[in-house]
Amino acid sequence: MLMDQITSSDEQELGRKLFNCMSDLYPICRSITGKGVRDTLLRLNEVVPLTVHEIPSGTEVFDWKVPNEWNIRDAWIKDAQGNRVIDFQKSNLHVLNYSVPFHGRMSLSKLRNHLFALPEQPDCIPYRTSYYQENWGFCLSQNQLDELADGEYEVCIDSTLKPGFLTYGEVFVAGNSEDEILVSSHVCHPSLANDNLSGMVIAAYLARYLQTQPVRYSYRFLFIPATIGSITWLALNEEKVSKIKHGLVLACLGDSGYMTYKRSRQGNCLIDRAVIQVLKQQGDFEIFDFSPYGYDERQYCSPGFNLPVGRLSRTPHGRFPEYHTSADNLGFVSPEQLSGSLTTCLEIFDIIENDRTYLNQNPKCEPLLSKYDLYQTIGGSEEVPRFQMALLWVLNFSDSKFTLLDIAEKSGLKFQDIALAAEALRHHGLLKDLSD
Amino acid sequence: MLMDQITSSDEQELGRKLFNCMSDLYPICRSITGKGVRDTLLRLNEVVPLTVHEIPSGTEVFDWKVPNEWNIRDAWIKDAQGNRVIDFQKSNLHVLNYSVPFHGRMSLSKLRNHLFALPEQPDCIPYRTSYYQENWGFCLSQNQLDELADGEYEVCIDSTLKPGFLTYGEVFVAGNSEDEILVSSHVCHPSLANDNLSGMVIAAYLARYLQTQPVRYSYRFLFIPATIGSITWLALNEEKVSKIKHGLVLACLGDSGYMTYKRSRQGNCLIDRAVIQVLKQQGDFEIFDFSPYGYDERQYCSPGFNLPVGRLSRTPHGRFPEYHTSADNLGFVSPEQLSGSLTTCLEIFDIIENDRTYLNQNPKCEPLLSKYDLYQTIGGSEEVPRFQMALLWVLNFSDSKFTLLDIAEKSGLKFQDIALAAEALRHHGLLKDLSD
Amino acid sequence: MLMDQITSSDEQELGRKLFNCMSDLYPICRSITGKGVRDTLLRLNEVVPLTVHEIPSGTEVFDWKVPNEWNIRDAWIKDAQGNRVIDFQKSNLHVLNYSVPFHGRMSLSKLRNHLFALPEQPDCIPYRTSYYQENWGFCLSQNQLDELADGEYEVCIDSTLKPGFLTYGEVFVAGNSEDEILVSSHVCHPSLANDNLSGMVIAAYLARYLQTQPVRYSYRFLFIPATIGSITWLALNEEKVSKIKHGLVLACLGDSGYMTYKRSRQGNCLIDRAVIQVLKQQGDFEIFDFSPYGYDERQYCSPGFNLPVGRLSRTPHGRFPEYHTSADNLGFVSPEQLSGSLTTCLEIFDIIENDRTYLNQNPKCEPLLSKYDLYQTIGGSEEVPRFQMALLWVLNFSDSKFTLLDIAEKSGLKFQDIALAAEALRHHGLLKDLSD
Repeated sequence: MLMDQITSSDEQELGRKLFNCMSDLYPICRSITGKGVRDTLLRLNEVVPLTVHEIPSGTEVFDWKVPNEWNIRDAWIKDAQGNRVIDFQKSNLHVLNYSVPFHGRMSLSKLRNHLFALPEQPDCIPYRTSYYQENWGFCLSQNQLDELADGEYEVCIDSTLKPGFLTYGEVFVAGNSEDEILVSSHVCHPSLANDNLSGMVIAAYLARYLQTQPVRYSYRFLFIPATIGSITWLALNEEKVSKIKHGLVLACLGDSGYMTYKRSRQGNCLIDRAVIQVLKQQGDFEIFDFSPYGYDERQYCSPGFNLPVGRLSRTPHGRFPEYHTSADNLGFVSPEQLSGSLTTCLEIFDIIENDRTYLNQNPKCEPLLSKYDLYQTIGGSEEVPRFQMALLWVLNFSDSKFTLLDIAEKSGLKFQDIALAAEALRHHGLLKDLSD
Repeated sequence: MLMDQITSSDEQELGRKLFNCMSDLYPICRSITGKGVRDTLLRLNEVVPLTVHEIPSGTEVFDWKVPNEWNIRDAWIKDAQGNRVIDFQKSNLHVLNYSVPFHGRMSLSKLRNHLFALPEQPDCIPYRTSYYQENWGFCLSQNQLDELADGEYEVCIDSTLKPGFLTYGEVFVAGNSEDEILVSSHVCHPSLANDNLSGMVIAAYLARYLQTQPVRYSYRFLFIPATIGSITWLALNEEKVSKIKHGLVLACLGDSGYMTYKRSRQGNCLIDRAVIQVLKQQGDFEIFDFSPYGYDERQYCSPGFNLPVGRLSRTPHGRFPEYHTSADNLGFVSPEQLSGSLTTCLEIFDIIENDRTYLNQNPKCEPLLSKYDLYQTIGGSEEVPRFQMALLWVLNFSDSKFTLLDIAEKSGLKFQDIALAAEALRHHGLLKDLSD
Repeated sequence: MLMDQITSSDEQELGRKLFNCMSDLYPICRSITGKGVRDTLLRLNEVVPLTVHEIPSGTEVFDWKVPNEWNIRDAWIKDAQGNRVIDFQKSNLHVLNYSVPFHGRMSLSKLRNHLFALPEQPDCIPYRTSYYQENWGFCLSQNQLDELADGEYEVCIDSTLKPGFLTYGEVFVAGNSEDEILVSSHVCHPSLANDNLSGMVIAAYLARYLQTQPVRYSYRFLFIPATIGSITWLALNEEKVSKIKHGLVLACLGDSGYMTYKRSRQGNCLIDRAVIQVLKQQGDFEIFDFSPYGYDERQYCSPGFNLPVGRLSRTPHGRFPEYHTSADNLGFVSPEQLSGSLTTCLEIFDIIENDRTYLNQNPKCEPLLSKYDLYQTIGGSEEVPRFQMALLWVLNFSDSKFTLLDIAEKSGLKFQDIALAAEALRHHGLLKDLSD
């Protein structure tokens, strides 16, 4: 199984690599289009070779159009003395993402219409966007806002918004089957760490690892701008959609919270059950029902597609105060949490890869397991090894109606134990694999 | 929607009217037949014109026969000095309802066989009946009973029990459809306020209001004696029964308790779900499963009919100590609770009237809602207006399998918000109404 | 009904008989084959005549073979002075059950490989077996083990293990129908009281009682060695298996714990629901889902048979510290608990015998019950006798879809009350029995 070969020192090493990759990506000013995304994909390409797609502005994608491409060099607000009181060079969050070019002078009272702050978190710069309505603006901390004296300011946004491309990356790992597992992460947020550098670097390292493994399913990784990216991919790849049998949106996976999962719209498909099976073994966790608000699962689970795609996160969007503020920085995530999230994904894939249906070849009464060296010979003690219990569960429920995951759920035993027992029984001819 | 036009001052005015109508009706000595019911319907006719039906004694109705008509002028117990120690003129509860005529003298010990008191509530006169076995008797408080000295008493019940009629009232409000909503309230209890003057005046004012509104469903209001009334109506109107698609029995709706609902025998039909949806918005409430004991839902939900009829009450029968005693008087009910019960009914009808199934015309991915001025243009904040959330829920689940009520239940949002969002989306051509 | 004729003094008398029978059986050294089982069946034959079956060693039964027959006369460990420090004559638990013959001298250190003790319960001799791998050994208390001085010991196991027979007993009580209720108890444990002398004597006295009663179902009682006994019976009686409609494994029924029940693999069949209905009336109880570990239900519920067989116990195996040790002796069980377990079985059979489906002959509205003398004539009080409530429940749900047990479950009333009400209604022609 995928996880079998990963030692705990591998995990530590992996955590460091994930964090270092995030550190490299953190300063880049990303948006839903433009150079920031291109530079990001270039760095991820060092982790795993990915195909970069460039979709021209104006391309019609369902009810939407690919927008003009946005790029930015600089932005600032200068006071009467010419001091940069707000400076894009200090934090790319300071600019309202997708601001149109602007240069001018105005009074503070007029400027206020273009300023966004967070009174409840006076130290933090909020992250705000205006993709689909032309606008310009600055985001700043409430403390900064309070310090702005009345008077006139010079304002400059040195950006461009003009026909270009929407850029996204794709990695395809071919498996034995054409059936696919989709892994989607959004790459459009500027200097925010947990949301969603964490998701994209984990996805890249997952792809890198899966390329080295024999796998039953094919895996498709998408590195896309949120919303418009998944809409664009779905619109331009409709013929591929029916191959997607399971999927995960990865986001917010580096913070110190426990794992959470938002079910697919279908609600109880294999990906949902596999995630829950894994999280149950980890102690605290939380499962949310599907709702049509969130990340790209909104599009994958729109009624015209209704794909079996859920979302894996630690603390989900909007549940941590650092969300969409300058406090979601590299100090908010840790190598251990990142590697733990990655191995959680592998455990999930292990279930999907190995869930099979077997048929007990000796269905009337139990076989004499000690004959096959599968059972202790001294009877009478109530303590039965976990492996023997797993054998009994697999034998009893392998009547063609239950898969291994069903049996793990019924028994309360770990999927790995059940799969191991099934393999031992199959090896002795006591089970027949019905999945092939 | 029905509730949209009712302001809070309308509600206050309505509460006063409901209470005044109850006050007019309170003194009347009602029973399952006789002048008391006729006088009651005459007063309700001032609220809403109703058809009065008179069914002859002896008419066979399923396993029952319409009983002889009972009327009473006076009843008393006089002590040796000729003082009326128990006097029907002081409370019509004093007579065992349906007592046959009687005049005679007897010792207290013999009289005791005909006296009914409530030792646990020594101040209250209980309400007792003997409809289907000829009998006579008096109900009195335990205190009154304890004060009766030994000795001889003169007893008189100046009643008549002879062939006549069973009387009930009916209001039909025609809607666009022949499908009907049944509203049933019992009118047979003498001077008891909550049970069930509350139910009958609310029903009358509901009928009055619905007559002024454009409605999708037709509404049938029955003002009937309990048990024999619903049995009689069902027996004589079997051809109308199949038109009843939803129904409510209204009883005990004026006390200070929170709303409660007893499910129909079917258990989870639209009326059940609509009531629960409304009560969930009100804070405390309680839902009971169907049981074959209670009011006229016993008959509507008998297995040969099995109608989707539930019962709406505040504190239900038998759960308040004043139940079926002289303490269930006008002081036990209030105008505010009465009008609150009436508007609750309208909110329920609003759901039934407006529950529809729509089809998302843009089912692949979300539409670009800002294009239709339905979505905020500044992104990044986690606070999404309720209306926008409702739009997303309606779009995602309008795949022809879910009605608006389904979507309200799934989302946890109010039905009104969901209906409003659906209307906005339909207006922009984003939804198609499948209900028509 | 079966329980109607049993008075509380009958129950006391029964408890004494059950306990006395256990006392007679307690000293016998039983195993899965041999004289111990034969002697046990001979004693049970005094309670109820049973057929003894002898199956030759070597008979193939599914994946198993009937093993050689084991008998034992004596076994001991003597110290250097020739004292029996461990003596089979003092407790037959001292020998590892199914030990092959052995005689020799050896040092304590070598002997230790053949000694079994329970460090956590230093006073108790554990019960251990080695049926399917030839071995010899002694079980002793940890205290005894600690007292053994270093040095040489003489060891003797005077047993035989050679071709012979597997012995089991069977009682068949013919009912009106060929459909069968299976009652299975294991008879292979040596001097252990609760596990399972309790189960076998209760089964024997149940069979004795049922032989005196008119019964709808036929009853098949099996007195078998655990595992190999049920496998043997199933293998040699496959043509009878389809007649088994309900079944109970009886084990551990004499201790002071409350009743527990392990569901059949099917999970919610009539036997499961009948047991739960009975246990709910008894106060504390516990229900376990099926698992493929336990007693002979493992075989009856193997996927090739999947019989509706559950297991009734008080404290189940492995949940009491005395389990499989010398502390599970006659002091651990009591006459009251034994007779209580037996009458619980009768109450369960009463439900299975009497669960029927009726059709309300007057399904439109309620019948006028007072006409049939089935209802109180004074109305108005909320206190309705249990019998009248049962009448209303039976009438309302006797629409051919619900059995009496369904109605008992829905109403929360006792099955006995529901059955009594149904009988009264049937008697008056208000119900028609659809079960015949």
